[in-house]
Amino acid sequence: VTGGRGGRSAAAASPRVFRERLAAAVAERRSSIVLGLDPDPRRVWPEALAASDGSAADAVVAHCSALIAAAGPACVATKPQLACFERLGAAGWAALERVVAAARAAGLLVLADAKRGDIGVSAQAYADGLLGPPPGLDADALTVNPYMGEDTLEPFLATGRGIFVLVRTSNPGARDLQDAALDGGERVWERVARLVDRIDANAVVGATEPVHLVRARELMPRATFLLPGVGAQGGRVEDLAPAFAPGPHGGLVTASRSIARAHERSGAGEPAQAAREEAERLREAAWALRA
Amino acid sequence: VTGGRGGRSAAAASPRVFRERLAAAVAERRSSIVLGLDPDPRRVWPEALAASDGSAADAVVAHCSALIAAAGPACVATKPQLACFERLGAAGWAALERVVAAARAAGLLVLADAKRGDIGVSAQAYADGLLGPPPGLDADALTVNPYMGEDTLEPFLATGRGIFVLVRTSNPGARDLQDAALDGGERVWERVARLVDRIDANAVVGATEPVHLVRARELMPRATFLLPGVGAQGGRVEDLAPAFAPGPHGGLVTASRSIARAHERSGAGEPAQAAREEAERLREAAWALRA
Repeated sequence: VTGGRGGRSAAAASPRVFRERLAAAVAERRSSIVLGLDPDPRRVWPEALAASDGSAADAVVAHCSALIAAAGPACVATKPQLACFERLGAAGWAALERVVAAARAAGLLVLADAKRGDIGVSAQAYADGLLGPPPGLDADALTVNPYMGEDTLEPFLATGRGIFVLVRTSNPGARDLQDAALDGGERVWERVARLVDRIDANAVVGATEPVHLVRARELMPRATFLLPGVGAQGGRVEDLAPAFAPGPHGGLVTASRSIARAHERSGAGEPAQAAREEAERLREAAWALRA
Repeated sequence: VTGGRGGRSAAAASPRVFRERLAAAVAERRSSIVLGLDPDPRRVWPEALAASDGSAADAVVAHCSALIAAAGPACVATKPQLACFERLGAAGWAALERVVAAARAAGLLVLADAKRGDIGVSAQAYADGLLGPPPGLDADALTVNPYMGEDTLEPFLATGRGIFVLVRTSNPGARDLQDAALDGGERVWERVARLVDRIDANAVVGATEPVHLVRARELMPRATFLLPGVGAQGGRVEDLAPAFAPGPHGGLVTASRSIARAHERSGAGEPAQAAREEAERLREAAWALRA
């Protein structure tokens, strides 16, 4: 869908490489929806369990593949939650590689939700493992944690892939540290937002407290916002308009449980059909917000 | 060495469970040294490469096993850096499991250096994957990132395993965010230190700027400090005395490159012998600091 994948050349090492690929994919698919893949082997769809060899790892692959087949056409990307694969050990990592291949075969970008962060030499190893070519995961984008500072983000940025820095997250505990007021009045997350703008990275900004979105957009006029928290966590697509100020690729609305478990609402029908309808509903709602 | 491993019972879900196991192990082995395992398949010891099947993952296992055999007797724990295993894909995760088994067979505790942090349901998946029983890694302790707030630390704490929260790290970029002054004069890392004390967790405090250690100990009188940054990053064991105020288990001095590459210093002999001598030198220097 989006042409050749960015390599390790000097030309690829610009934040614009990912953002241009993303903008092209969003325009072509007319979607800003990211399909979250947070598989729990105890809660896979019955059709997936039946299609698997019965192992937890294979059930997870079958579940994610069925989810991609059902909801993928309404989405521009997938976001595998690495914790859900790591908990299955080595078999889980192999399952992750198969799920990434399934997403790519469906024409979807892959955003590895790993929230990594470490000193330079270890950050380079994570960059190789998650954004590098095989045996790396070769993902198009990665979520990273800024607590350790700018030098720990550089190896990720140098890949030219999409780097989404945690700025203001969607969980209640985001208030503990991210909302703490700094000397001068600025909050910690606003300081991180300035860093993100300076290094031309992208940002994770929770959809649960839309009041932060306007301020986040002021501080990071170029960044694409990855917007978790719609659905199960209480956020509403209709409140996310400020994210789309730079254009349709300015915001990526992630949804996991609200799509994978759409069938649990009464009268919603079987899982794949319910997931397809919910993803399409989200796609239309988000597409209507574009600037 | 340290008796039965803490399980998932209510009795196990206290921070004291890990700290008591650690104190017993430190006393028995007369060591506060943690052997960092950051294997780079391009830099394995020649003897390990010769003993391996030639694959990167097997070479990494052979290298770590040789390092554990040589330097392990002077140490109380190992600290595998998960990034170095993840970069090898599924084979790397299987290698990690083998290295953890080798460490355990040598009577060493296992501190998984993963620096994870995510919203509650994903933090639970990481806790299962890294601290839970197989297919989990079943590590004795884990490094975690506090940026997302207290609710994201709770699933880790509930395991009763050792939780080392990043407080003030050893890299230059630690100044960017961790040293930022909050309204009222306290720095961000001091706010995190208060949180660590309140939840009775342990702390990562870099050994590169000893001036922070005294203040960190004031704010966290009970915590065990994991002290990276000795050796390659410039920290000196002799400067770490404040860490040991609560007793010999108050500080854990981690060393990776300074042990694994001790033979690169002129006249240091072959790798295993040089590693053994450097680990023993560090053990004696740290043991002399105990309160």
